[in-house]
Amino acid sequence: MVDKKLSGAGLRGQVAGETALCTVGKSGSGLTYYGYDIKELAEKVSFEEVAYLLANGELPKQAELDAYKARLKTLRGLPQALKDVLERIPADAHPMDVMRTGCSFLGNIEPEEDFSQADAKIERLLAAFPSILLYWYRFTHDNVRIETETDDDSIGAHFLHLLHDKKPSKLHTDVMNTSLILYAEHEFNASTFTARVCASTLSDLFSCVTGAIGSLRGPLHGGANEAAMDLIRDMKDADEAERTLMGMLERKEKIMGFGHAVYREFDPRNDIIKGWSEKLAQEFGDSRLYDVSVRCEDVMWREKKLFPNADFFHASAYHYMGIPTKLFTPIFVMSRVTGWTAHVKEQRANNRIIRPSADYIGPAPRQVPALANR
Amino acid sequence: MVDKKLSGAGLRGQVAGETALCTVGKSGSGLTYYGYDIKELAEKVSFEEVAYLLANGELPKQAELDAYKARLKTLRGLPQALKDVLERIPADAHPMDVMRTGCSFLGNIEPEEDFSQADAKIERLLAAFPSILLYWYRFTHDNVRIETETDDDSIGAHFLHLLHDKKPSKLHTDVMNTSLILYAEHEFNASTFTARVCASTLSDLFSCVTGAIGSLRGPLHGGANEAAMDLIRDMKDADEAERTLMGMLERKEKIMGFGHAVYREFDPRNDIIKGWSEKLAQEFGDSRLYDVSVRCEDVMWREKKLFPNADFFHASAYHYMGIPTKLFTPIFVMSRVTGWTAHVKEQRANNRIIRPSADYIGPAPRQVPALANR
Repeated sequence: MVDKKLSGAGLRGQVAGETALCTVGKSGSGLTYYGYDIKELAEKVSFEEVAYLLANGELPKQAELDAYKARLKTLRGLPQALKDVLERIPADAHPMDVMRTGCSFLGNIEPEEDFSQADAKIERLLAAFPSILLYWYRFTHDNVRIETETDDDSIGAHFLHLLHDKKPSKLHTDVMNTSLILYAEHEFNASTFTARVCASTLSDLFSCVTGAIGSLRGPLHGGANEAAMDLIRDMKDADEAERTLMGMLERKEKIMGFGHAVYREFDPRNDIIKGWSEKLAQEFGDSRLYDVSVRCEDVMWREKKLFPNADFFHASAYHYMGIPTKLFTPIFVMSRVTGWTAHVKEQRANNRIIRPSADYIGPAPRQVPALANR
Repeated sequence: MVDKKLSGAGLRGQVAGETALCTVGKSGSGLTYYGYDIKELAEKVSFEEVAYLLANGELPKQAELDAYKARLKTLRGLPQALKDVLERIPADAHPMDVMRTGCSFLGNIEPEEDFSQADAKIERLLAAFPSILLYWYRFTHDNVRIETETDDDSIGAHFLHLLHDKKPSKLHTDVMNTSLILYAEHEFNASTFTARVCASTLSDLFSCVTGAIGSLRGPLHGGANEAAMDLIRDMKDADEAERTLMGMLERKEKIMGFGHAVYREFDPRNDIIKGWSEKLAQEFGDSRLYDVSVRCEDVMWREKKLFPNADFFHASAYHYMGIPTKLFTPIFVMSRVTGWTAHVKEQRANNRIIRPSADYIGPAPRQVPALANR
């Protein structure tokens, strides 16, 4: 019975279900999607291939990939009613709240009528999320109503195109592609588990994804890349980074972007995004943020044996591509929607409603006092 | 280690945290909120007192109750932007999807900036949910833009007033009061657990409640009262009810509104709502639906030793009050928001991010094949 008594411990180490989707931290490191190592995926395939893999269990053949990408391209437009809603969300709203409402409202006007529509709705969300985010962002920040339908070849390029109003370079497109692959799936993390709990009531796909966005919004989950950016933004050079971090460590302040709940030795995604950050620094012609980040990595390892997780070098990489910090976590949504929805399908295929127990720590049975006697 | 191996079993019997809010099914029956038995609460207090209890841990004194109800009354109005959004949701949308988007959008324009605002936001949602639901319903079904601010003394009366465009009778007000008490809180059910998983990332209150609505929407969770209504609506009399149920049992069809995941002997809420349904039948002057429901109860107990849960007699009770069936589950939201948000506060007060493990059942490690070789 001892294993049941983990009250308040966040179900850590307790098995809440089965998955064929992903392994995280086997033998202390490593991340696989359906058996494929994240490093090999990041080197060899496109994000669209990963999205297809997560939705179907196998990588696409050429004809399947062509058809899949062609379908996604047709799904970038937003209905007028959704645009009307996005225009009513203030400029200072939390961008994750925009994603949450955008997803929920899309479920109002294009609902999943039954589970046979799941794949079509997944593709719609995957194609529409960059449009939802940037329609709102450009309207509220640049005062323009953008056309969200572009002919960009990839989701990453579509996002950058809408953001900067021009076709992105090959380097930036490649970085976005890799970034979306790295964030796509990560087993039973809190947002994915939220999606699975919702799916276990046999609710619709939009409810599952809306709930997952709400969980990813939390500062203990998504948002570490934004926090990392806040940390490094104004550091003038590597030596200042060292001084700042040493001071923070001395004051026992939390430093975001280091360590991980599951990985014990290193985060396999770090080397990959770190490499791209270095390339971007070279292209950008100013390596300050990259140098600062490398020094942070050195200090954290030397002082605390903590390694950077996927989020840390994402901060400098995104910044070099001109992406506003407040959009970092919504990019996570654009990617992780593939993992969330794959988990929803997996939960539906072998379902029992998720309904754990609680240890009671409240008052003993008592009588209701009359209002006058309280 | 045996206790950990419950993959796919929905965490049944596994402790996922502590709560002071509620006991469910202690010694096979019974439901308490902060130590008070549901029967005594349903007899002696108002829903507003229960809402206050769940938010504060103690029943209010007279002055506290007066102030609380006065505050709630001031919070019934909807901002124009929210009305604009509700008007853009089609008449045939799922009403739970309306609640989900309404909650999410309210979080866009009146966000919880920090956790010190939690109580204020809880009161806002509690007061605004009937307005959100009925503004949309009356606009899309009756083509009117209603004024949602009324001076009704209770949340139940406010709801009925907006629905029927007139002050409700004392009997109907009392039934709504009791119904909202019965549905207010039920420990770690799937929607509440969704709210707690979301809260464990330290996300905002609107995200937690939006996610919970999405989970309650699922047919395995909320919606049993709607399914019960679909079952009994066209039964001409008790004998037809008996014939129909016997046929369904023979064909092993699922009959909603009976049995419970936690209660083993009876659902303590059933007797209470059953009593009100009988009174409503007398007032209505047609006991058909009540008689039919009683016969269903008899048959299910005789044949399967299954008892009606809280949902079954809610169907006839709501119907006698002229509430459209599609609004049954949203009433559940109007009530359970008190329990959900109390759990959010409890989770925040002693938090660890909820992140369980999964058993891997996927492919062994494999190489990424070139696109041409797949």
